[in-house]
Amino acid sequence: MTSSVRPIDFRSDTVTRPDDVMRQAMAEAEVDDNVIGTDPTIARLEQRAAQVLGMPAALWTPSGTMANLIALSVHLRRGDRFLATRGAHVLANELGSAAWLAGGMPDLLEHDAGPGRPTPETLAAAIGTTGPYFALRTTLLCLENTHNAAGGAVTPPDEHARLLSVAKQSGLTVHLDGARIWHAAVALQVPPAALTVGVDSVSACFSKGLGAPVGSVVAGSEEFVEHARRMRQMLGGGVRQGGVLAAACLVALDRADELGETHEFAQRLATGLTEHGWRVTPPDTNIVLADVPDLPTALSWLDSLGIRTVPMAGKVRFTTHRDLSAADIEEALRRIDDGA
Amino acid sequence: MTSSVRPIDFRSDTVTRPDDVMRQAMAEAEVDDNVIGTDPTIARLEQRAAQVLGMPAALWTPSGTMANLIALSVHLRRGDRFLATRGAHVLANELGSAAWLAGGMPDLLEHDAGPGRPTPETLAAAIGTTGPYFALRTTLLCLENTHNAAGGAVTPPDEHARLLSVAKQSGLTVHLDGARIWHAAVALQVPPAALTVGVDSVSACFSKGLGAPVGSVVAGSEEFVEHARRMRQMLGGGVRQGGVLAAACLVALDRADELGETHEFAQRLATGLTEHGWRVTPPDTNIVLADVPDLPTALSWLDSLGIRTVPMAGKVRFTTHRDLSAADIEEALRRIDDGA
Amino acid sequence: MTSSVRPIDFRSDTVTRPDDVMRQAMAEAEVDDNVIGTDPTIARLEQRAAQVLGMPAALWTPSGTMANLIALSVHLRRGDRFLATRGAHVLANELGSAAWLAGGMPDLLEHDAGPGRPTPETLAAAIGTTGPYFALRTTLLCLENTHNAAGGAVTPPDEHARLLSVAKQSGLTVHLDGARIWHAAVALQVPPAALTVGVDSVSACFSKGLGAPVGSVVAGSEEFVEHARRMRQMLGGGVRQGGVLAAACLVALDRADELGETHEFAQRLATGLTEHGWRVTPPDTNIVLADVPDLPTALSWLDSLGIRTVPMAGKVRFTTHRDLSAADIEEALRRIDDGA
Amino acid sequence: MTSSVRPIDFRSDTVTRPDDVMRQAMAEAEVDDNVIGTDPTIARLEQRAAQVLGMPAALWTPSGTMANLIALSVHLRRGDRFLATRGAHVLANELGSAAWLAGGMPDLLEHDAGPGRPTPETLAAAIGTTGPYFALRTTLLCLENTHNAAGGAVTPPDEHARLLSVAKQSGLTVHLDGARIWHAAVALQVPPAALTVGVDSVSACFSKGLGAPVGSVVAGSEEFVEHARRMRQMLGGGVRQGGVLAAACLVALDRADELGETHEFAQRLATGLTEHGWRVTPPDTNIVLADVPDLPTALSWLDSLGIRTVPMAGKVRFTTHRDLSAADIEEALRRIDDGA
Repeated sequence: MTSSVRPIDFRSDTVTRPDDVMRQAMAEAEVDDNVIGTDPTIARLEQRAAQVLGMPAALWTPSGTMANLIALSVHLRRGDRFLATRGAHVLANELGSAAWLAGGMPDLLEHDAGPGRPTPETLAAAIGTTGPYFALRTTLLCLENTHNAAGGAVTPPDEHARLLSVAKQSGLTVHLDGARIWHAAVALQVPPAALTVGVDSVSACFSKGLGAPVGSVVAGSEEFVEHARRMRQMLGGGVRQGGVLAAACLVALDRADELGETHEFAQRLATGLTEHGWRVTPPDTNIVLADVPDLPTALSWLDSLGIRTVPMAGKVRFTTHRDLSAADIEEALRRIDDGA
Repeated sequence: MTSSVRPIDFRSDTVTRPDDVMRQAMAEAEVDDNVIGTDPTIARLEQRAAQVLGMPAALWTPSGTMANLIALSVHLRRGDRFLATRGAHVLANELGSAAWLAGGMPDLLEHDAGPGRPTPETLAAAIGTTGPYFALRTTLLCLENTHNAAGGAVTPPDEHARLLSVAKQSGLTVHLDGARIWHAAVALQVPPAALTVGVDSVSACFSKGLGAPVGSVVAGSEEFVEHARRMRQMLGGGVRQGGVLAAACLVALDRADELGETHEFAQRLATGLTEHGWRVTPPDTNIVLADVPDLPTALSWLDSLGIRTVPMAGKVRFTTHRDLSAADIEEALRRIDDGA
Repeated sequence: MTSSVRPIDFRSDTVTRPDDVMRQAMAEAEVDDNVIGTDPTIARLEQRAAQVLGMPAALWTPSGTMANLIALSVHLRRGDRFLATRGAHVLANELGSAAWLAGGMPDLLEHDAGPGRPTPETLAAAIGTTGPYFALRTTLLCLENTHNAAGGAVTPPDEHARLLSVAKQSGLTVHLDGARIWHAAVALQVPPAALTVGVDSVSACFSKGLGAPVGSVVAGSEEFVEHARRMRQMLGGGVRQGGVLAAACLVALDRADELGETHEFAQRLATGLTEHGWRVTPPDTNIVLADVPDLPTALSWLDSLGIRTVPMAGKVRFTTHRDLSAADIEEALRRIDDGA
Repeated sequence: MTSSVRPIDFRSDTVTRPDDVMRQAMAEAEVDDNVIGTDPTIARLEQRAAQVLGMPAALWTPSGTMANLIALSVHLRRGDRFLATRGAHVLANELGSAAWLAGGMPDLLEHDAGPGRPTPETLAAAIGTTGPYFALRTTLLCLENTHNAAGGAVTPPDEHARLLSVAKQSGLTVHLDGARIWHAAVALQVPPAALTVGVDSVSACFSKGLGAPVGSVVAGSEEFVEHARRMRQMLGGGVRQGGVLAAACLVALDRADELGETHEFAQRLATGLTEHGWRVTPPDTNIVLADVPDLPTALSWLDSLGIRTVPMAGKVRFTTHRDLSAADIEEALRRIDDGA
């Protein structure tokens, strides 16, 4: 079914493989048991990540899904209503754990300020007013920057600030799903910490675009991280000599400002697809969403050309990453041209 | 703050008090311990309700909230996605228990076929296609008839059938929140069983509009009710000599076709309010929603006139019921006229 | 299978039916919607129960199971370890909701100070010492007085005080399952409030021995009751005109000091059974546990004699109550004598 | 507070660090994204582990805690009662997640057949008989071999078989916590698969005694593993290029029969401690539990000697492992002798 030609892998930026430098760092990592003690490399990563993200403390987790789940579990009491943007990863891609496990009742914010971004008015209306004792209690806002299902869309700091202002006025806690915060920072030419101003917690991934095989962090106050550490152990995310993974994450972190090239790949791909008549939203970062008439047909046609993609929010998602080259983009466009 | 004039109570049709006939039935009810045995009056009510609702079996519960919660808990596995209409009671008025306790991840259906009713196309799009193993699994559709937050809106049998057809084609289970199914049946001039065709479970309340002090049912297959009985006990809804309450519910059930008068009250109220310049959706049944510029101000102004209402979906909700009279409606309109 | 002779019902003291006085109180009860407002009779019951139980506030619930579940849900965070006596109702008779719903991990206390009562040393050892971040956290002690599975056994105030002292030194919260606290108070000739000294919450039932058809309370601080009210609504235990039930509970509360006669019934039954060669623990209150060689055979033999009992903790449980007479006890003993 | 002498680390066999062979295997591992696709090294490990454990299929997890949690979550419905031995890891060391997250209500089995082992009679009595609809439902037995809190105690195949026979007769599912099944197999001189006969699922760890930095498996039927895979993703245990870890687990698996030396270490340590007057249970495998008069004092005294241990079940636990040598054991005994 899959083409025999060399596959060009746009499925995700999570497919990037650790390179030799990263593998060597892993092989040389100083380690210790991080459940009953402290792994020094994990400790170093957590300190560095906290600093880069502008938060007091951070905690390593085996996945971004767990990082978000921990944050929601710490923030939410049973039945609390939380707000997230339509298509947010915590709503659509975490198997409902925000509800059954973190205990939250989600509600949607539309992207009426632009892709991935609600207006402050929409947020204020969604928060509503405090009801009587038998009414839902809204306590948490989840933002996502870049916004995956909105095509890697970026929320700039000023919009972020306006949303936080509304949330804080109503006493809401704010979690930022920053799985790809590195991409947002590069696109906006600001440090990542400029994008976390005022949030109570932020998650970030080293396996998305940065090439680390396994690992994310969730960052917040010291007290938050203390709770998060316990929740991580509850969920089975406490590992032993995790330093072998954290070493790769540290290498990844060093590369966080080299993502610009993958954004250029996405620009070129979007331009090329548009020239072939595809309906494509201009990408902010490294994700290109193409709106096709028949999604399953499109996915399998691309697959037959050796172009690997995934469905996302009813569209074809192409994700560019460091294991692709400019030549791969051209080759993909050529195959689409030839195959059409 | 509250007016000293005689209050006219439009807060809900749940405010109706048991009358003498109902109280006498309660006083004379034959009872037994319904946890370790079977209360004969509860058994009688459950049989009768199952018959009226057109379902194989039914289970008494102390509230409609528990009836819905039991249904969702029986139907949903952890993290299953379920669909409900915007503002549905299970989403907005049950304190998030559908998520944290029944374990479901909700998603919204817009009312694009009319108040309280999605189109079959909207439903089909929301169900989407089956994703990979790491994607949300959509397993349940919740309908609500009449639809409270949509102003007591009625879904007619043919629309209901089209929605069920879409749901069933995708293998979804269907729960009907029929808290006010009696109102829908009267408005449509069909028996309640005509409105449950094809559903897997239905809840219905005797304390909404029918005057019973306490009690609802959830109905479904024999197997469903067996699970539901266990879930009721888990939640603490198993009671002892509940026959005293079921006796009132039986009286209420006898009155289920007398609700037409309360619909006329709502019509008159809506007409009167419109004449006073209010923006009001024409009511299908006994609920009138008024769209006001400033909700808190409107509520407290009405309260100062001795007119008791509640907020619902950002509007003022007036609910008519059997403890009001035609004269009460006129008096309320007069006070609004005088007070304006 | 069941005998055709007049049944003598020892299944539970929950089988008692409301008498005429109670039914009349129910029929005359002043009521209002207790979800969106306040039912005056429920309010009166809650105030009176709080006073009798010596607690700042109380909340009506439809069952003792829900009262306990609410208390545990308010007290426990996810995964907290709680201690309860072997066979405690919260462990053995509430369908595991203390675990899956309240989120607690239970551990057992043996009855080494007497039936239903651990020694302070056993409690201290079970609490243990605070472990590292990845260890269980023990936060709650559940006591039960009288202790159902221990045969209605009473814990006197001085033993209660010693256990509380140990619990409080370790920072534990204490919940008392006082479903039959009325029996303990009568047996000890102290007011119920003497048995709640120092606890953070207490549940008590009006349907166990006191004849009310439906209703319990859970009492604690004002803040506790505020949380409990919300949890009750979440679980579907919020009812409308519940005053019809609370009126019965108020009558029941007036009778709480008349339980002595049912204790005499139990004494007589225990003496008679012992004379017939049964192995019976001398009852403190109204429950007689008989240790039989073959439980299913014993239960069905008794049933064939028209003597209705239930299994409890591997034994036959006879429960005496206000709907039995001294003559019923003699008749039961006569049937056992004749049937043997 | 900690001694400046070279520490001898008996805290756990999880402290073992990956050696050069293992690190090289990690550095050379073939990898792919194991969430949206299949990592070939993880796939190879899962196949090999399934084979060694004698199960149809296996799933890699980041920790043994998650492996057990997944198994319990798949097996248990809300509120199901499950049985485990006193001090079992699922009861005492997983932060209550078996209760709040997997939804089970635990009950204890005493070790009356020997350390870590209940008698079949104890098991049968604990299962009891099926109760009425409102009673707990017992559905799962958790065994643990070797049993950590019982001092690494081994259950031989014939005892295992008798317990399974009782469990299966009552329709129970059986999960085996085989975190250290490799130790049991070596001690009994049987293949690991001889210890899983009849179980529905088994967990096993590569980070306990075998030196892998991160990784466990849970194995069972194909259907079980399909559910487990979804549950792993829900909990955030799905990782990307996990092959770097699975490569280490494969090396570890090759070493599973080299554990005999660490058992000799434990024997020597136990003998030496006994000669010094300590109360020590003769070890079956690599864990030595010493019963001391004052646990905190003993732990800190050992720490001052550079001998690192942890508390377990109220005793001092010494765990031997591959990063210790025969000389380390003698050195530890010498320090204890000198320090006393």
